[in-house]
Amino acid sequence: MNNSAESSYIGLEQNGIVQPLLTDLYQITMAYAYWKSGKSNATAVFDLYFRKNPFHGEFTIFAGLEECLKFIQKFHYSETDIQYLRTVLPISIENEFFEYLQSLTADEVSLFAVHEGTVVFPREPLIRVEGPLIVVQILETTLLNLVNYASLMSTNAARFRLAAGKLKLYEFGLRRAQGPDGGLSASKYSYIGGFDGTSNVLAGKLYNIPVKGTHAHSYVTSFCCLPEVTVTQLQPKAGGEKREFLQYAMKWREKLMSSFQVPTSQASDGEFAAFISFAIAFPDMFMALVDTYDVVKSGLFNFCSVALALHDFGYSPIGIRLDSGDLAYLSNVARNHFRKIADIYQIPSFENLVIMASNDINEETILSLNEQGHSIDAFGIGTHLVTCQKQPALGGVFKMVEIDGQPRIKLSHDVEKVTIPGKKETFRLYGGEGYALIDILQRTVEDSPCVDHKVLCRHPFQESKRAYVSPVRVEKLLVLYWNKGKICQKLPNMQEVRDRVKNSLKILRSDIKRSLNPTPYKVAVSDNLYTFLHDLWLENAPIGELS
Amino acid sequence: MNNSAESSYIGLEQNGIVQPLLTDLYQITMAYAYWKSGKSNATAVFDLYFRKNPFHGEFTIFAGLEECLKFIQKFHYSETDIQYLRTVLPISIENEFFEYLQSLTADEVSLFAVHEGTVVFPREPLIRVEGPLIVVQILETTLLNLVNYASLMSTNAARFRLAAGKLKLYEFGLRRAQGPDGGLSASKYSYIGGFDGTSNVLAGKLYNIPVKGTHAHSYVTSFCCLPEVTVTQLQPKAGGEKREFLQYAMKWREKLMSSFQVPTSQASDGEFAAFISFAIAFPDMFMALVDTYDVVKSGLFNFCSVALALHDFGYSPIGIRLDSGDLAYLSNVARNHFRKIADIYQIPSFENLVIMASNDINEETILSLNEQGHSIDAFGIGTHLVTCQKQPALGGVFKMVEIDGQPRIKLSHDVEKVTIPGKKETFRLYGGEGYALIDILQRTVEDSPCVDHKVLCRHPFQESKRAYVSPVRVEKLLVLYWNKGKICQKLPNMQEVRDRVKNSLKILRSDIKRSLNPTPYKVAVSDNLYTFLHDLWLENAPIGELS
Repeated sequence: MNNSAESSYIGLEQNGIVQPLLTDLYQITMAYAYWKSGKSNATAVFDLYFRKNPFHGEFTIFAGLEECLKFIQKFHYSETDIQYLRTVLPISIENEFFEYLQSLTADEVSLFAVHEGTVVFPREPLIRVEGPLIVVQILETTLLNLVNYASLMSTNAARFRLAAGKLKLYEFGLRRAQGPDGGLSASKYSYIGGFDGTSNVLAGKLYNIPVKGTHAHSYVTSFCCLPEVTVTQLQPKAGGEKREFLQYAMKWREKLMSSFQVPTSQASDGEFAAFISFAIAFPDMFMALVDTYDVVKSGLFNFCSVALALHDFGYSPIGIRLDSGDLAYLSNVARNHFRKIADIYQIPSFENLVIMASNDINEETILSLNEQGHSIDAFGIGTHLVTCQKQPALGGVFKMVEIDGQPRIKLSHDVEKVTIPGKKETFRLYGGEGYALIDILQRTVEDSPCVDHKVLCRHPFQESKRAYVSPVRVEKLLVLYWNKGKICQKLPNMQEVRDRVKNSLKILRSDIKRSLNPTPYKVAVSDNLYTFLHDLWLENAPIGELS
Repeated sequence: MNNSAESSYIGLEQNGIVQPLLTDLYQITMAYAYWKSGKSNATAVFDLYFRKNPFHGEFTIFAGLEECLKFIQKFHYSETDIQYLRTVLPISIENEFFEYLQSLTADEVSLFAVHEGTVVFPREPLIRVEGPLIVVQILETTLLNLVNYASLMSTNAARFRLAAGKLKLYEFGLRRAQGPDGGLSASKYSYIGGFDGTSNVLAGKLYNIPVKGTHAHSYVTSFCCLPEVTVTQLQPKAGGEKREFLQYAMKWREKLMSSFQVPTSQASDGEFAAFISFAIAFPDMFMALVDTYDVVKSGLFNFCSVALALHDFGYSPIGIRLDSGDLAYLSNVARNHFRKIADIYQIPSFENLVIMASNDINEETILSLNEQGHSIDAFGIGTHLVTCQKQPALGGVFKMVEIDGQPRIKLSHDVEKVTIPGKKETFRLYGGEGYALIDILQRTVEDSPCVDHKVLCRHPFQESKRAYVSPVRVEKLLVLYWNKGKICQKLPNMQEVRDRVKNSLKILRSDIKRSLNPTPYKVAVSDNLYTFLHDLWLENAPIGELS
């Protein structure tokens, strides 16, 4: 199978439905109201961020940036878009507005963003967009759509990766994904988040992700007896004449079952026929689904017999897949069988045959299997991965923080929903051991934190929570990605984004990443921003009267 | 706004990523193994069905059929598909196989399906596909992808519709949807399931679904004081000279707040400026988001003042949107204000101003609001609707039930997972009151049930559960939709599918549709199928040995 995913996915056509009308109607009605009241060209600053890490965790992976950049690069209303909008908006709307809309591009907008694949936290801007109010506002829904699921999916995949350690992980969710594009995005962002491959062939073709797959239960049940094996010969790996393969496999089955003291009648002949045919078709990648009838009484013996015959012919069988039952128990039984065979027949490689599991697996299943002890080498993960079952949406928002140089704040009874006003930078401060200590938001007018200088980090909403931090390294998180109508950073290819996820997670202490009761990572504000925020808050919140 | 959705959506280009490679790799490896062992043209019958209704409910809406038909209509591997597959599959694979793959179409396949929009139940085939094994098998993943989310989404929407009764429902979920296409599918299938419209403009353009939207909090916060209202005049509805609108609104605000005995200082001037500007831009569709600062102290007064000024100018304001807080309480406060104003100023229409709510609403929220008593007329629903948060995947499966005339059964320790073998028809039997009584699966070789003749209906797995039913009406659910390379039914337009959902739900007794502890609707098998199923089961399950 193709295992090289180094080539870039940049330059790929974006899904055609990512276009300016993939938005909420209120963006267009607001655009007209802005235009009508002469506010179109007010200079606005919006932050895209989220308020809470998903999956009861304490970290999030930022993804979707490349899609956002492709979207703003080609941002432009088509003729038919404008025709459609004319039918939707009131007839009283001036023709000039539609002409103005049609002339709009994102060329006057600047977009700063965290690098795609970086670990990020609540309340810090992932993207900051500056430019004419009307354009920045109009980008909202599409940017959110492109970032929310991509980041959620990458984060989910990264969590599976952490749970699975060095075991292989494959995304098998296409049939349960939320529509065709949901499936494709799932394959892409689960690879970015740390998966080793996908079953989705189109994702393999489009993004050069390694693809995996063997057969389904239906393949096994399509055979009912040995005479159905029509091609019975196989050429040995070393070359030369084709030889009878079926007989080898049959001999092995008799031998094995008698040495394991199981009557041959227990093993399904249909399954055996299916495995033999599959091995003849794919002698170099023989992997068998062994639970169609009974793993212990039938599947394992049928697999081992065919695998041993393949070994006689010079091939290296790959392993088995378990898709039901007690995965810990069955994988241990299988490993014991493999060990015994390796031992009895002096074929050491049999001990390490791959055991893959794929039945409705989620993060907790993997953690629980780890605790019980199992012999699984690889997981195929579907529904829970692609639908992000534990939390199917990341609540990313896009909020105005400044207009024409004046800061804006959105108040709320819920403190978590109060926005942090003004144009801001985020710095990540690192400690001596290479771990990130804290992220700090500052106003852009402030000086950047310096290495080895004390920085006062304050909780944005709790006055008494403060700490001095002397960073060993300071990283500025927001980078200018789009300026004057151009993408102004080299975009990483998918492998590079994947590597960034991996490396980015390394800078987090393990207690922040653990599944159960993780430690929150702190996002602070500078002293200057703290005062700025609270002064503005008081100014905007009139004193109530109890009555 | 455009409210006509009668025109057909047939003929629309399907999303380009719906193509034969949007599948799991194992379909291709199985295809080769079938080909290699001469099984390609065995005649296979597969059923597409699900095992459990979603959302703890007892019904499901079948959707996605048109997409499936479009897919099989154009089913064909492209040159580049084959090129890619050559890189993925082992080098040993014969060139003839790739040539064969490239020649494949779905022309020899027959597809029977339940009409799109019909209410359906566990274990009954939604789609039955018959034809050459290799082609039928290869269709699996894509068909499941197209049916699973479409049906889940339509069912979710239908449940919201049942909970909301006659209230208006709008889909507002694009930003939280699972990718761009996830968002578009959500808009489409929520409309089919009974929603009244969407905020998604592209869905409006492509599917002619009514679109809705006003403004966001950012629009309100972009204004900070009254001098920012640059356009202050408005032409009265009846025509004639433009007149000062701002002053009217200001006068109304003073009048109102004094009559409600609230100091004017409590109401935000920025919000007031935003509402005035919005009303001048959209005098005929003035709807305001009233919770940016404080609904009771600010938003309602600002809205009512502008609405009264609009009324003076001959326009009919629409209403308000609430996006936070206690929706039952706030909506009742708002309705009381509206009533008082209607009464004091003798403007009866004010009593019926629309109150829309849109804050993280799910089915339970609506049911709970109904219980508490509220004054909401319309809901805007996002995350919970489009991600199907309560259950983000429908577990649809595609199982082989017959090959070359021989029935196939897939056994499992879990009885629910045992397949019902053989080629089957489904009949819906109706009682005297027009309600559906039971669905019955029969073998295709059996005679159809007849009106007024007793039919023995058996539980598929529990021998003692049997009942005679004398139907007043019999409906055959599976209809031939694709035959000899052609779609052979007139496809309904989206409005017709939507109507079918509505009418299909009417044939279910209300206890089956209720949210809490609904009564299961029964899907039975005929006596003939019962015996057939259990004989085959025994044949395939060897007697175990306890050891």
